[in-house]
Amino acid sequence: MAVIMKGKPVADAIYEELQPMKSLNLTLGVIKYKDSDAGGYLSGLSKAAERLNVKLHISEVEQFTQLTEKVIALGDDPQIHGILLLKPFPKEWNFRQASDLIPPHKDVDALHPVNLGLLAQGRGKLVPATPQAVLSILDFYNVLPLEGANALVIGRSEAVGLPMFLCLMQRNATVTVAHSRTRDLPSLSSQADLVVVAVGKPNFLTSDHVKQGAVIVDVGTNVLEDGNKVVGDVHREQVEPLVSAITPVPGGVGSVTTACLFKNLFLCYQEQVR
Amino acid sequence: MAVIMKGKPVADAIYEELQPMKSLNLTLGVIKYKDSDAGGYLSGLSKAAERLNVKLHISEVEQFTQLTEKVIALGDDPQIHGILLLKPFPKEWNFRQASDLIPPHKDVDALHPVNLGLLAQGRGKLVPATPQAVLSILDFYNVLPLEGANALVIGRSEAVGLPMFLCLMQRNATVTVAHSRTRDLPSLSSQADLVVVAVGKPNFLTSDHVKQGAVIVDVGTNVLEDGNKVVGDVHREQVEPLVSAITPVPGGVGSVTTACLFKNLFLCYQEQVR
Repeated sequence: MAVIMKGKPVADAIYEELQPMKSLNLTLGVIKYKDSDAGGYLSGLSKAAERLNVKLHISEVEQFTQLTEKVIALGDDPQIHGILLLKPFPKEWNFRQASDLIPPHKDVDALHPVNLGLLAQGRGKLVPATPQAVLSILDFYNVLPLEGANALVIGRSEAVGLPMFLCLMQRNATVTVAHSRTRDLPSLSSQADLVVVAVGKPNFLTSDHVKQGAVIVDVGTNVLEDGNKVVGDVHREQVEPLVSAITPVPGGVGSVTTACLFKNLFLCYQEQVR
Repeated sequence: MAVIMKGKPVADAIYEELQPMKSLNLTLGVIKYKDSDAGGYLSGLSKAAERLNVKLHISEVEQFTQLTEKVIALGDDPQIHGILLLKPFPKEWNFRQASDLIPPHKDVDALHPVNLGLLAQGRGKLVPATPQAVLSILDFYNVLPLEGANALVIGRSEAVGLPMFLCLMQRNATVTVAHSRTRDLPSLSSQADLVVVAVGKPNFLTSDHVKQGAVIVDVGTNVLEDGNKVVGDVHREQVEPLVSAITPVPGGVGSVTTACLFKNLFLCYQEQVR
């Protein structure tokens, strides 16, 4: 029977650890596109903020210049302790140009190149929320020693796959990063002790891909066509019987990510008062 | 018969490409520890500098505070277009504290976290010289398509292994990084189409480690005890008969690295006049 690595107890432990934040009256600046439906995510963010006595300062923007101006304004505002750009924004906007304007010490999503560079050099204080959540889950359930483990990260995005690789390598795993151009993924993945999959495709990882007894972390959150059901990247019916531990979707990595975002806010604050 | 991927023609092609530098009268600031014997490297550097009409501005320092002061002074000096910290420095010195003071646009070794972060984000202009040399050699000899190749990087240093991983991944190879904690390296490496080895141990990579027909890049430069012979990390007698292509040591990667350093100086200059 596989261990189902639920996110809630991990998130609860992080919120517990973050209790000292409550007395600090921190404010997280959130910028979203006016017409975007970030509804679900925003409500989770609000609940977490309330739990930690963090104020959300939400700005809505309609034009790209408003976005960059707002990032600069919040960056300069000493009352704002962290800045979150809440995707999605219109595709034609140069998101990176905006995110580059976030001061590194307010960069709760760790998007700034200097934060990624510090992470790569093994001295990063801010780890992007999703890979940080994956590590927190693995540490909490302690289902495999990372040192020396053969780990496979599927997906190479800046927010997930790439920093995930860095974190796992720094924990002394032997890490491979697979992606859309990888040949013969099943042969690769079926050798891995740990598979972290972040490709955004329902039922992508099947029984062909996994080794008996492996640990599987499913970062996918795919909304199915009817709009009501969220599924991960793993074909759970096929994979769960084979593996020793797996994260569910929903209720897995996603539910820890928000907690990690607030942990980053706390770290940002500590950097600001240093 | 394996293709012996010598560095010289690759370096010559880079120097040819860099001819426009000659009219620019650039200066490279080099800082070395007074008592260090960087003799061999410095003479190679001088020859290359002469070839490109670059002036070397060499400073010797005896104390750590002199090092940081010198880095700051050269960083502020508009007559200095790039700064190279020529290792070795005394082990007890905080090398990183000094290298962090190099302005990112004079950072010919790409040591600054923002340069590494930009590289990780796929928009790095400056690539550390050694991985850049490896890519130049692979491109020059065109011995395997990198896209989809299974590549193994052995070693995870900031200057070589880590940026090598990033570069190969951005060329769409499927890349694994192995290191001292990796279990069963032979089974891993014998599946790789390309092995880049940078561990600093003579005869480390043997016939047990390689797949028939693989491409091997040897980044090691190990000076043997008698002080007169330099060998790589590959047991060449064992490995060469098995593989399709291999870089020699000496005369391989090392001889291209200096050319790549001057390429970075050129890129730094272009950044400064933008």
